[in-house]
Amino acid sequence: MIFSEPIVNSVTWVTSLTHGLQPTLLATATEAENAPIVLTGVLLSLVVIYLASKIGGELSRMMDLPPVLGELLGGVVVGASALHLVVFPDSGAIASDSLIMTILQFINNLTPDSVTSIFQSQSEAISILAELGVIILLFEIGLESDLKELTKVGYQAAVVAFVGVTVPFAAGTAGLMFFFHTPAIPAIFAGAALTATSIGITSKVLSELGQLKSREGQIIVGAAVIDDILGIIVLAVVASLAKTGEVDVFNVIYLIVSATVFLIGSILLGKFFNQSFVAVANKLQTRGNLVIPAFIFAFFMAFLGNAIHLEAILGAFAAGLVLDETDKRKELDQQVKPIADILVPIFFVTVGAKVDLGVLNPIVPENREGLIIATFLIVVAIIGKVVTGWSVFGQAGINRLAVGVGMIPRGEVGLVFAGIGAASGVLDKPLQAAMIIMVILTTFLAPPLLRFAFKQSVEPQETIEPADVIG
Amino acid sequence: MIFSEPIVNSVTWVTSLTHGLQPTLLATATEAENAPIVLTGVLLSLVVIYLASKIGGELSRMMDLPPVLGELLGGVVVGASALHLVVFPDSGAIASDSLIMTILQFINNLTPDSVTSIFQSQSEAISILAELGVIILLFEIGLESDLKELTKVGYQAAVVAFVGVTVPFAAGTAGLMFFFHTPAIPAIFAGAALTATSIGITSKVLSELGQLKSREGQIIVGAAVIDDILGIIVLAVVASLAKTGEVDVFNVIYLIVSATVFLIGSILLGKFFNQSFVAVANKLQTRGNLVIPAFIFAFFMAFLGNAIHLEAILGAFAAGLVLDETDKRKELDQQVKPIADILVPIFFVTVGAKVDLGVLNPIVPENREGLIIATFLIVVAIIGKVVTGWSVFGQAGINRLAVGVGMIPRGEVGLVFAGIGAASGVLDKPLQAAMIIMVILTTFLAPPLLRFAFKQSVEPQETIEPADVIG
Repeated sequence: MIFSEPIVNSVTWVTSLTHGLQPTLLATATEAENAPIVLTGVLLSLVVIYLASKIGGELSRMMDLPPVLGELLGGVVVGASALHLVVFPDSGAIASDSLIMTILQFINNLTPDSVTSIFQSQSEAISILAELGVIILLFEIGLESDLKELTKVGYQAAVVAFVGVTVPFAAGTAGLMFFFHTPAIPAIFAGAALTATSIGITSKVLSELGQLKSREGQIIVGAAVIDDILGIIVLAVVASLAKTGEVDVFNVIYLIVSATVFLIGSILLGKFFNQSFVAVANKLQTRGNLVIPAFIFAFFMAFLGNAIHLEAILGAFAAGLVLDETDKRKELDQQVKPIADILVPIFFVTVGAKVDLGVLNPIVPENREGLIIATFLIVVAIIGKVVTGWSVFGQAGINRLAVGVGMIPRGEVGLVFAGIGAASGVLDKPLQAAMIIMVILTTFLAPPLLRFAFKQSVEPQETIEPADVIG
Repeated sequence: MIFSEPIVNSVTWVTSLTHGLQPTLLATATEAENAPIVLTGVLLSLVVIYLASKIGGELSRMMDLPPVLGELLGGVVVGASALHLVVFPDSGAIASDSLIMTILQFINNLTPDSVTSIFQSQSEAISILAELGVIILLFEIGLESDLKELTKVGYQAAVVAFVGVTVPFAAGTAGLMFFFHTPAIPAIFAGAALTATSIGITSKVLSELGQLKSREGQIIVGAAVIDDILGIIVLAVVASLAKTGEVDVFNVIYLIVSATVFLIGSILLGKFFNQSFVAVANKLQTRGNLVIPAFIFAFFMAFLGNAIHLEAILGAFAAGLVLDETDKRKELDQQVKPIADILVPIFFVTVGAKVDLGVLNPIVPENREGLIIATFLIVVAIIGKVVTGWSVFGQAGINRLAVGVGMIPRGEVGLVFAGIGAASGVLDKPLQAAMIIMVILTTFLAPPLLRFAFKQSVEPQETIEPADVIG
């Protein structure tokens, strides 16, 4: 029966119950019963996430650090490392680990089975919101990037990305095999994790520093995009190596070709699409006449990116680049801002929340071997990316340190490698822990380092936009 | 193993995989594997939903009808009645009914089990987005409403709500028992379904007509809010009647007291909160300095509304009313608009998508009895609400027809009654079908009728804001 409780909640019921003519409706009665509680959990999680992001972001700014660092740390505080308010079943948490679930259980007097199912649904909802957050972030970054500028620095970006992938990969794999006698496949996996660059974190910091449109900023963003594509390819190679001991050459060629065709194709086709977009937006007269067509385009491109087994964020970034070329740019930018403001923090806080700083505790004996390997990986991770700055050619007076430092954060992409490594079973515990520590430290060190690097700049900045810092 | 496919998608992986130190990570490998496909499904659903809302909304406007009607009809076209692009498992659909799932299955070569699980997760995500949409809609309506105006018309609104609940309930229940020899409990259930007013649809239409701040508009919104509270109470009474044959008096008193305390309490406390809100928003200097604190407040109030077994939308509406009293009103209004623009259509399109117009087909013999009962219910539904206009007192020159017509749409609240009725097992098929037809027709007729009623207005409108019509 649908009423085991005097809970009557029309709006939340509606999405779970409808006309009920189908015979299967009763079978989903339990889920329908839980639906308002899932919404309660999502709302409470969002309140916690927003509080964490704002308190963290503001404290970070007061200390003259980039706000996104505070958002990540805010996530760490409310997440698996400390308060256990925002935890996820796919990081191994169960419902009773979640403080929010404990609160919901107390309010609604739930059975353990219901709690597990509500926890799962609520976590999935927050994850989807976080994913929409990073898609919109990349769309916004695309909107703020200048296609002409990006094309101008295209070669440099490609070289930086290539160096930033090969140097850490080679040094990391060889070093692990030589110094730590790690077998080849786990060493290659760890080396692959060193190649990642978090385009989300790096571009957010650049935007906060007002450096997104500087030459350095554009090289970093371009290189991070190319790095993302190279990362997809490296990951595919390594994963098939780990699984079968062989490399699926066809798949590697497929990924290289599809990524290139997708990015270049969408930008070329975009020139034609531009005209129609402006024409359509001018004709529409109901609310959302600009932002809805833009989101249709962005989400469709993100869908395409995912559908051809690349990445949703690549599609969103390409969509932003294309729409940046229209007359509607300014207006669209202004309307996307508040949407990004409420969705992007969900991404950063959940990235922080999923990290378990427990692996950093040297008092726990099994952490120690990992900490030693981690120290090695961190050194390789930083040096391997910093050197990329010196691979930039033909750009007199460029801040090479800033370019190199901008490539350091591994962020969510590094976590992916670590996660897939853990699931593949080829990594032992110390190496897993070391990879995670490397990802955490490069992610958290990069924002202050990047700020420092730009302060050391020998030339005046081309663009400083306070409007980018204060929304 | 996590790689059964050459799908490598870093951003979507990240939300499903993390450091992987927990032993349970492998157990969730299947879900992690599906996570990027769920996102693909959500993105494609959003593209379809936005296209449906914009095409429907614009066509509606061209025919001089309120855009929200077109959004609902757009939902009908893409939903269970026609294209089967946006369908929901809790309306009895299975994965193979969903065209989007068929597309995903084709792209990713999925097993039937995976498809079922992906369909479930994707539908839950869209439902949560729709729920956030109606929460933000009510927050925006609260922001656009004037607390002083609402208090001025408070008594009238209460009378209108009371008449609009008792007349259709009494006439519907008595008529069904007298003319159709329906047993008491199902008759009471159907009568209860007649009491609902969809605050979402009615206030959206008012806003689109630029009538939200007119006297009529404020009475309708006030009455719809009170009606929502009365609806919760009626639903609780009827549901406990259907279940046990008795009324749980304690629960009824609890709901009445908690709803009153919640709404009045939050508005009174809001006067103090106002000051701190402005002070905090002025101090914050990172992006989202205004919109994030506002959403923390709105989502917390919505959470509270849900947690005390009332409704999330009541909390969001109260939050909007409170923040409307601050100096930041204009700025906040402007920033909430694009957020509402992308989330609210998801709500209206899914309401339309969940409706199955198949029950209206008179060629199917089992629909006929329902159609006859439906005709009776529709007459009661319209007359029972239109008379409420004549219960307004002490307001010379008020457009009584507009007030009455504004109360007609049953919308999502009516669907809830129908859904709970179906799940309770007390309603036979013809009565179920009749209730659904009544909800569909009152929902779709109300917007054009309301527009007509306002055109018949004998006095000039107080407020017409084209800015409300074109975002």
